[in-house]
Amino acid sequence: MNHMVHQSPLDEAFAALSDPTRRGILTQLGDGPATVGELAQPAGITVTGMAKHVRVLENAGLVVTEKIGRTRQCRLGAERLDDAMAWISFYQRLWERRLDGLDAYFTLQKGHEK
Amino acid sequence: MNHMVHQSPLDEAFAALSDPTRRGILTQLGDGPATVGELAQPAGITVTGMAKHVRVLENAGLVVTEKIGRTRQCRLGAERLDDAMAWISFYQRLWERRLDGLDAYFTLQKGHEK
Repeated sequence: MNHMVHQSPLDEAFAALSDPTRRGILTQLGDGPATVGELAQPAGITVTGMAKHVRVLENAGLVVTEKIGRTRQCRLGAERLDDAMAWISFYQRLWERRLDGLDAYFTLQKGHEK
Repeated sequence: MNHMVHQSPLDEAFAALSDPTRRGILTQLGDGPATVGELAQPAGITVTGMAKHVRVLENAGLVVTEKIGRTRQCRLGAERLDDAMAWISFYQRLWERRLDGLDAYFTLQKGHEK
């Protein structure tokens, strides 16, 4: 019954965003493309460590990389965060509805007390 | 220089959302509070397995639980996804700016070709 599922794009996007170094990479790439080495230096981590983070972002579709000579150029990938945004908006609506429900409940209670 | 950092609320929120079972729990709680057992059944997992998922959501502030007798009641937690939403909006703006940049570049190229 309970099969192992492959990670969906939404799972991968949220997992990729759960790390401050990876969010920092996206911020830096917002200013323009950069090599893995150029990303590693300000983050204070090794090129190998940075390459791993970049791969997570690449698998999630948030970053696209291209091998140019000896370096790997990175840039922002396809707009895959639309689904993540839609999901969070949905949660916010659920949350607001919960508050509305409580509000209605207390209004009702107040009515009964009269 | 490179200290081990504690997970920030934003890290925890994104990590919590990276699993379809956990997103399903939030959706179900949008309809009203439920016990861990009531959440486990439709998800097709054990109560112990569900309790682990609930704990991840609770640590991220997305779910609040309360022990009532022998059961643990769960409901949607504080609105902690505002930061996650703000972060994704920020990324979308970076992405749009990248497209604007490309557009400006091609317009410039076109001008040079004339």
